[in-house]
Amino acid sequence: MAEQRHRVVVVGAGFGGLFATKALRNAPVDVTLINGTTYHLFQPLLYQMATGILSEGEIAPPIREILKRQENVRVLLGTVTEVDPEQRTVTAVAPGTSYTVEYDSLIVAAGASQSYFGNNQFAEHAPGMKSIDDALELRGRIFGAFELAELATDPATIERLLTFVVVGAGPTGVEMAGQIAELAHRHLPGQYDRIDPRKARIILIDALPTVLSTFGDRLSTTALRQLHLLGVEVELETKVVDVDETGIEVETRDGLRRIESLTKIWAAGVAAPALSRQLAEATGAKTDRAGRLQVNPDCTVPGHPEIFAVGDMMALDNLPGVAQVAIQSGKHAAGQIKRRLAGEEAGQPFKYFDKGSLATIARFHAVASVGRFHFAGLAGWLLWLVVHLLYLVGFKNRVTAVMHWFVSFIGRGRSERVATFQQVFARRALQQYRDHLP
Amino acid sequence: MAEQRHRVVVVGAGFGGLFATKALRNAPVDVTLINGTTYHLFQPLLYQMATGILSEGEIAPPIREILKRQENVRVLLGTVTEVDPEQRTVTAVAPGTSYTVEYDSLIVAAGASQSYFGNNQFAEHAPGMKSIDDALELRGRIFGAFELAELATDPATIERLLTFVVVGAGPTGVEMAGQIAELAHRHLPGQYDRIDPRKARIILIDALPTVLSTFGDRLSTTALRQLHLLGVEVELETKVVDVDETGIEVETRDGLRRIESLTKIWAAGVAAPALSRQLAEATGAKTDRAGRLQVNPDCTVPGHPEIFAVGDMMALDNLPGVAQVAIQSGKHAAGQIKRRLAGEEAGQPFKYFDKGSLATIARFHAVASVGRFHFAGLAGWLLWLVVHLLYLVGFKNRVTAVMHWFVSFIGRGRSERVATFQQVFARRALQQYRDHLP
Repeated sequence: MAEQRHRVVVVGAGFGGLFATKALRNAPVDVTLINGTTYHLFQPLLYQMATGILSEGEIAPPIREILKRQENVRVLLGTVTEVDPEQRTVTAVAPGTSYTVEYDSLIVAAGASQSYFGNNQFAEHAPGMKSIDDALELRGRIFGAFELAELATDPATIERLLTFVVVGAGPTGVEMAGQIAELAHRHLPGQYDRIDPRKARIILIDALPTVLSTFGDRLSTTALRQLHLLGVEVELETKVVDVDETGIEVETRDGLRRIESLTKIWAAGVAAPALSRQLAEATGAKTDRAGRLQVNPDCTVPGHPEIFAVGDMMALDNLPGVAQVAIQSGKHAAGQIKRRLAGEEAGQPFKYFDKGSLATIARFHAVASVGRFHFAGLAGWLLWLVVHLLYLVGFKNRVTAVMHWFVSFIGRGRSERVATFQQVFARRALQQYRDHLP
Repeated sequence: MAEQRHRVVVVGAGFGGLFATKALRNAPVDVTLINGTTYHLFQPLLYQMATGILSEGEIAPPIREILKRQENVRVLLGTVTEVDPEQRTVTAVAPGTSYTVEYDSLIVAAGASQSYFGNNQFAEHAPGMKSIDDALELRGRIFGAFELAELATDPATIERLLTFVVVGAGPTGVEMAGQIAELAHRHLPGQYDRIDPRKARIILIDALPTVLSTFGDRLSTTALRQLHLLGVEVELETKVVDVDETGIEVETRDGLRRIESLTKIWAAGVAAPALSRQLAEATGAKTDRAGRLQVNPDCTVPGHPEIFAVGDMMALDNLPGVAQVAIQSGKHAAGQIKRRLAGEEAGQPFKYFDKGSLATIARFHAVASVGRFHFAGLAGWLLWLVVHLLYLVGFKNRVTAVMHWFVSFIGRGRSERVATFQQVFARRALQQYRDHLP
């Protein structure tokens, strides 16, 4: 009888879980990767799906395709609802079934979900930007707003339909606002009879005094100027106090104000998933304000050297919730497991290597901060393009898909605009489902 | 004041309505094109979307993009619920609004929907193949079945999950069954740990004694042989008597039999939309058994030379419900309107030019019937490919998208596999919505 190999369970196939799994490729372990969907989501390009540039498949390659040449991994569909650190098992639910898997080492990389800072009722009127469903919903709402404006006759209704509010001026919000502006000013004009899409207002709101506040003053200022050139109205030091179907209530130094707008997009705030809380309760670990697990410097959960929490789920050294942190911490966890199995000393602290920050604002304009170097405009944009092209090609090995992306993005086409009937009815049902998840 | 031009309203942007609109490009008319979605649907490739080859955008280009260079047309989103032949108006509903448009000439091209031959309760368990929503739903069910089989432990459950039943052996059903077989035998093997996708059963059912019965005996026989080579079980002279969540009940000469299967696909039967009945009642026109309008030889509705019914909605000379009939009858209607406006004699009968029939069964295998010529195997497949490539390129002018399609289709990749959470909940809600449409 063959000896049982060390069993690693990885929860989540986002950046953290996927890169941890890949890093275990040649290790003497059996990996079980459990994910709530069948795909890995390339979240940084979600806003391009929402604005008609990319299809679902282009930013969400099937996990099984990505890993099909890795022999020591099995992939299971399921949402992990519970970790039992005593029995060393995880329990997952999938449509119509649930199951339990044993582990010797566990890497929890369940990511983060949108946070409405205690106002979950905003979600219905201002979808987030975290999932394929979010992006499809927003795609339907954004293009749908132009369609309904074309049908409307009342000027106030038309204005409300053509006002887009993006909440949160971090990279996601800035990129989203920039792309809606490009849609309105470059792609859609000439396609309507009664309305002029160029008259659309795009309003970007943030409670902080700068956009892209983590990029540093110089790039923030450059980004702000670019947004203005694109026609985006940037309202800083502005707090959202209420969101309803037809508008948004904000608070500034001058008091309360209402913005009439049908399409609101929430790109502010993240929260750790329910699993983070469950794991904290089960292990006695602490969580931070966003619900992230406070881990040891080596990414393990206190008292449990066999459990790693990585990526957006971990609270460590105030590291930001970005793809690079997830990728590097996932690889670190895998490396620690390999060291232990090789009989080497483990417990090395995770050291984040900051490769820099990138955000694209419009065609040919991006801001990039790499170490001491700052790029803006075309130079920043070319850097952004190369990084994303390399990433997409590396992953998907589909040169034609990347070419298609390249041409649509540079060119005028916005071909992925389909909205389904399902979207009109499903959001509420979906919310109920999520509310009932443990 | 400028003289009001002749107003043409076109209902539906499928093959019939879109080609009618394009044929009116240089006519001295103002065209209003009303469609229930924002896109034209290239229905013959819907099965490729359902099986992960194509994205929504690739088979459903935005109507506004297609027509953006045509000056005399405006496009409105809306489902036309009523034609008033006395007032010469059509009334349409769109989310949150409804409106009425006047016409001088009317081209009704509202297509056809799936028919369950009076058993609408089958729809929930056996989705049709008519819309983007259908294809997304089927995509989720097909790939989801393999995922759930990977999780299952009970052999009977696994077998039920890996049994796919396609009802209807016309081109849609044959192509669908062929693609599922290709998925199971060529694309998915090696991606699962516990199940062998090659063990999937694909069963194609028809009440008639042949597959592709309209293609003639020789091609039917060739197609049947090809399906067998692909591993598709073809059950002819077999009638569906019941469909439920876990299986399908069929009647053959040997009596009743049950097939356990979670994924059923309905590719049998079409019915005219509700608008056809309304128009018949309002004009006194007759409808055939499928609810299609019996039109004059020139495609006009009896007593109303200003109203044309074209494509799948018209009953004329037993013409089949295929894209070419819709395209040619749409163009014919446009031609008649142009003749009248030019003061020429109208009322010419529509003459259908049969360009032939094409159905692809697997990679490198298709059957084609063009006049007296019959092609099968590679020759038929190359013909099929050329026709579809030309069509797609002509429409979308996006060479990269077509290249991507070509490479995915020829290659092993099935990259468009995303299923949304929305699908799990939306179908019932959608059905309720449809039931409440007038």
